[in-house]
Amino acid sequence: MVVLDLVGIFVFAISGALVAVRKELDLFAVLVLAGTTGLGGGFLRDVLIGATPPAALADWRYLLAPIGAGLLTFFFHPTLGRLERRVTVFDAFGLAVFCVAGAVKALEYGLGPLPAALLGMVTGIGGGMLRDVLAGRVPVVFRGELYATPALAGGGVAVVGIELGAPLLPVAVAGAAVCLVWRLLALWRGWQAPMPTGPASV
Amino acid sequence: MVVLDLVGIFVFAISGALVAVRKELDLFAVLVLAGTTGLGGGFLRDVLIGATPPAALADWRYLLAPIGAGLLTFFFHPTLGRLERRVTVFDAFGLAVFCVAGAVKALEYGLGPLPAALLGMVTGIGGGMLRDVLAGRVPVVFRGELYATPALAGGGVAVVGIELGAPLLPVAVAGAAVCLVWRLLALWRGWQAPMPTGPASV
Amino acid sequence: MVVLDLVGIFVFAISGALVAVRKELDLFAVLVLAGTTGLGGGFLRDVLIGATPPAALADWRYLLAPIGAGLLTFFFHPTLGRLERRVTVFDAFGLAVFCVAGAVKALEYGLGPLPAALLGMVTGIGGGMLRDVLAGRVPVVFRGELYATPALAGGGVAVVGIELGAPLLPVAVAGAAVCLVWRLLALWRGWQAPMPTGPASV
Repeated sequence: MVVLDLVGIFVFAISGALVAVRKELDLFAVLVLAGTTGLGGGFLRDVLIGATPPAALADWRYLLAPIGAGLLTFFFHPTLGRLERRVTVFDAFGLAVFCVAGAVKALEYGLGPLPAALLGMVTGIGGGMLRDVLAGRVPVVFRGELYATPALAGGGVAVVGIELGAPLLPVAVAGAAVCLVWRLLALWRGWQAPMPTGPASV
Repeated sequence: MVVLDLVGIFVFAISGALVAVRKELDLFAVLVLAGTTGLGGGFLRDVLIGATPPAALADWRYLLAPIGAGLLTFFFHPTLGRLERRVTVFDAFGLAVFCVAGAVKALEYGLGPLPAALLGMVTGIGGGMLRDVLAGRVPVVFRGELYATPALAGGGVAVVGIELGAPLLPVAVAGAAVCLVWRLLALWRGWQAPMPTGPASV
Repeated sequence: MVVLDLVGIFVFAISGALVAVRKELDLFAVLVLAGTTGLGGGFLRDVLIGATPPAALADWRYLLAPIGAGLLTFFFHPTLGRLERRVTVFDAFGLAVFCVAGAVKALEYGLGPLPAALLGMVTGIGGGMLRDVLAGRVPVVFRGELYATPALAGGGVAVVGIELGAPLLPVAVAGAAVCLVWRLLALWRGWQAPMPTGPASV
């Protein structure tokens, strides 16, 4: 589980570091955006449920993963940028792991099913949203990319399973699988989130 | 009290959802900006005073109010956009409720009078500020709109009343009335916050 | 120590207020950006380590310092703008005080050496990052300015000293001195943080 978590953090961190490189920001920004993207969703969840200090601050491996991803991207960004489509597939794995882990942790801290599923989604997408705010752009999850819905669905499946009394492991796998398959289908088929219709109201 | 709170959240959420529609963002952004605007001020206050998880995460009605407001805006934004001037009046009610509720809660958590009044203001304006940051624009409360001062005054009246030992209900009504009247007068008379004079320093 | 802290907050707050004036924002924005810049780094640290409510909310002097700095800047911004180079030197003092105080507080709350040094850095630079996000610009610490590294180094020196069992005062002075000298040298010599090389990856 920790290995899956670290892989997710590493891949998220690469996406943050690539944003910094493309914005022509400095090494420090590369590292901060790597860390924010990799760990920010979990930080938001932990601060909201009162699980402070966040787990990632108590385990140096969680801090070294984004630092490593940031340095790797700083030096080899042309290669990583070309591989980004493949990175996106790993990113879907990270999303699947995070949304389930976040929902389960929120349940453990006594939250109800609906807020727990929402916090699973926040764990999955919060890092990328912080990355975009710090990089001065509107979050990509707001612009048609079908990213948040799979995370909400994955967290929701995990929550429903646990509330029904099913054992943790198969429930977690099912939630992650729902998120992963949905996200990959959205990527491959180019599914988009619905847009408001009609002229923008004044 | 809960009804007033829910009305405030609902109206704030509509203002967030309208920003998302006007920025041509997707359904997910409409829902997130609705939730952020409706609940964000209370989240900020609760995280700062250590009242985690925030009350809104423990009561599903607080989560359904912004979801409902977001869906309503997504489908009927041309109508809601036209009604916005009237929505703004309800928004002033929301501001009045939030600034008093936030100040009272901060006092209950042991904060002093000045920070409690400030946290009342944060409860009232924080959601709109988060909305604007996520939507990629400078917060509207920074651009001359007289919005924060009435919230600070309303919270301040409530704090002073409670510190003087007055009973809660009339104090809360007085604080909310001060905020509401001031805000409505500012809207109707076009009052603006003071701007710095002279050339912008280099 | 409190005096040093207040001086740091005051100087940070002036930098935030100047950003608001230059963006032609109103008096309220001047005060909020002053408060955010002066206190935001400590707020971020305290929320992350679970030390809520933040110390600054329990001591009115910490709230009056940025209000005073904001009002001073609002009325005398042409003068303060001209003095900004000298303000920047005081700002380096503030950074040195904050990074050490933040790292020490994180250690006291049971964090390990690496996260404690990082939280020292967050205490030093977080206020300025919040200021820039609220003002709608990419954080200046991301754009080549050598600002975060001295803060990390200062916090790191303090952490290492304490872990080695050295007494607090000389360790704090050493950490602050490392941060201060490094930052002033960077200012005077025009040192920049490393930038990614090669074309920005697609």
